[in-house]
Amino acid sequence: MNHIVIMAGGIGSRFWPMSTPEYPKQFVDVLGTGKTMIQMTVERFAPLCPIENIWVVTSREYVPIVREQLPDLPSENILPEPAMRNTAPCIAYACWKIRKQDPYANVVVTPADALVLDVNEFRRVIGHALDFTVSGKRIVTVGIKPTRPETGYGYIAAGKIVEETQLMNVDSFREKPALDVAKEYLAAGNYLWNAGIFVWNIDTITESLRTYSPSLASKMDLMSESFYTAEEERTVAEIFPTCEKISIDYAVMEKADYIYTVKGDFGWSDVGTWGSLWTLLPHDADGNAVVGENVHLNDCKGCIVHAPGASSVVLQGLEDCIIVERDGRLLICKLSEEQRIKDFVK
Amino acid sequence: MNHIVIMAGGIGSRFWPMSTPEYPKQFVDVLGTGKTMIQMTVERFAPLCPIENIWVVTSREYVPIVREQLPDLPSENILPEPAMRNTAPCIAYACWKIRKQDPYANVVVTPADALVLDVNEFRRVIGHALDFTVSGKRIVTVGIKPTRPETGYGYIAAGKIVEETQLMNVDSFREKPALDVAKEYLAAGNYLWNAGIFVWNIDTITESLRTYSPSLASKMDLMSESFYTAEEERTVAEIFPTCEKISIDYAVMEKADYIYTVKGDFGWSDVGTWGSLWTLLPHDADGNAVVGENVHLNDCKGCIVHAPGASSVVLQGLEDCIIVERDGRLLICKLSEEQRIKDFVK
Repeated sequence: MNHIVIMAGGIGSRFWPMSTPEYPKQFVDVLGTGKTMIQMTVERFAPLCPIENIWVVTSREYVPIVREQLPDLPSENILPEPAMRNTAPCIAYACWKIRKQDPYANVVVTPADALVLDVNEFRRVIGHALDFTVSGKRIVTVGIKPTRPETGYGYIAAGKIVEETQLMNVDSFREKPALDVAKEYLAAGNYLWNAGIFVWNIDTITESLRTYSPSLASKMDLMSESFYTAEEERTVAEIFPTCEKISIDYAVMEKADYIYTVKGDFGWSDVGTWGSLWTLLPHDADGNAVVGENVHLNDCKGCIVHAPGASSVVLQGLEDCIIVERDGRLLICKLSEEQRIKDFVK
Repeated sequence: MNHIVIMAGGIGSRFWPMSTPEYPKQFVDVLGTGKTMIQMTVERFAPLCPIENIWVVTSREYVPIVREQLPDLPSENILPEPAMRNTAPCIAYACWKIRKQDPYANVVVTPADALVLDVNEFRRVIGHALDFTVSGKRIVTVGIKPTRPETGYGYIAAGKIVEETQLMNVDSFREKPALDVAKEYLAAGNYLWNAGIFVWNIDTITESLRTYSPSLASKMDLMSESFYTAEEERTVAEIFPTCEKISIDYAVMEKADYIYTVKGDFGWSDVGTWGSLWTLLPHDADGNAVVGENVHLNDCKGCIVHAPGASSVVLQGLEDCIIVERDGRLLICKLSEEQRIKDFVK
């Protein structure tokens, strides 16, 4: 059976005050579509498996928000992390849990807060990857066909095509590049953006962690005893915080030699910056992108405004600015300075 | 006995959203001092008469706000105008009402939303004017010693000094001037800003209106029958809205020949523009003036920020802007364009 693991523990500090530690980006209707990022993510995967096979790993404090935003999700499918320990422990917890229930599970792991424009193509590609991982020791990481020399993403160097499939070997992973390097990647043609979406069967991921992160795996074995019992919460609270903070990329992806990629060309964005959000939204003739019903612009150019809850917003004379209002919190900042928002908010 | 009439019916649309039709400027803590404009106005006059002699004329809808902000004011001293009819009917209503109770009253009429920095000097000057009007047919309008060639105020051309007093005859009133004219006024030395503060005894003002606005005076005579009876509200609601919309300047001041002025040099401002508010507030090294506890500026210059209720405001890269937040309403506008705020808000 297919299972989907949605990682929803981020705190989204780059998007303050649209995203706050109390209500981070994955739970926000970032695009003004009427749906939050996590709701769109669940919808995107819904045809691939029954809702009982969708799992959300998140911080304990966000559990009520997940319940509220995903009322159809069985509440036992919400896995609260007692502490933030990066992606490897988060993914391991979900996969050990799934394995105890379904030892033949075929799993997709995805962030909660990315955007996909062509949902049908996305499902086709993910379905293809799932077919490939249903048996055998294979890990697929989804590679996005790059459309610009983006320096904000990691890259996958794709190698040879696996015969009779649309999959390719992964030659290597590359960190976020400098602009000139990103341009070379784009020109080379075999570099893909790393979307952080992984596909594997439950045997492969648990065995991989056992091989490359044995300490993490044995902690999971310990926790696993308690899964689906009254002891689970207490045991997880005790053991999970002792896991090393380590990303799945570092723990497994960069070490195993059975990593493959499938090229996705379905309008993907991690919506990681205001600049990327600006490109995703419709614009007026002056290049302003607005989320919010009650926003009135005068002599403004190239601005992005996010104020869906404001009762009235009147702006005049602003250029290339980010303007965000949420619950009495206000940010105005030049788009060119958005990297500093994290610091401003400290 | 001295009486004070505070006119508090304005809607303050130039200051949206700090000032809104539901809660206009006179009821707002504009300067962040912890006191609203009308509270500061009452305090300023408090030593001149008992609180029972202070009267507030305002729109019916603002009566609850006046009660809340001036809990010591007898509630029968709040005179609700059933309709806005400019200053002459407003002042006439209050003066006819006072006259019925105290035919020898000596009266100061003042706007609710001006600022005075040197309150002691203000009281000295007003006391002087009251001494002058306690008997005889004399109207005093307070003239402010101008400190700049302001084009936003009307001017008083002062004439000869009245012997043994600090009062001067008023030669004429002048409309808001062009800048070059305002400069001439400033250079001439005998021009004063018209603060809209009037001093007269009750006989003088009622007789003056009888002479120069006989229709208004006879409506007041009609209304007066009902004052201090159960019929008052009904009668005022019936007659007051039929009064002509006319200012006291046009109805009396520009017609009578017994108009005097007293020069005030006590740090006065009508706080009529964001620019004037900016000059009244303290500034940081970059010329920013801030009202609000939770405002954080980065690379901002010459801005005025008013967001006392916001839980957090972070600004970056703004120059010479007005930034105002109140109850989910937000205005950002270049200071140079503040005259357009009224239009933006429509």
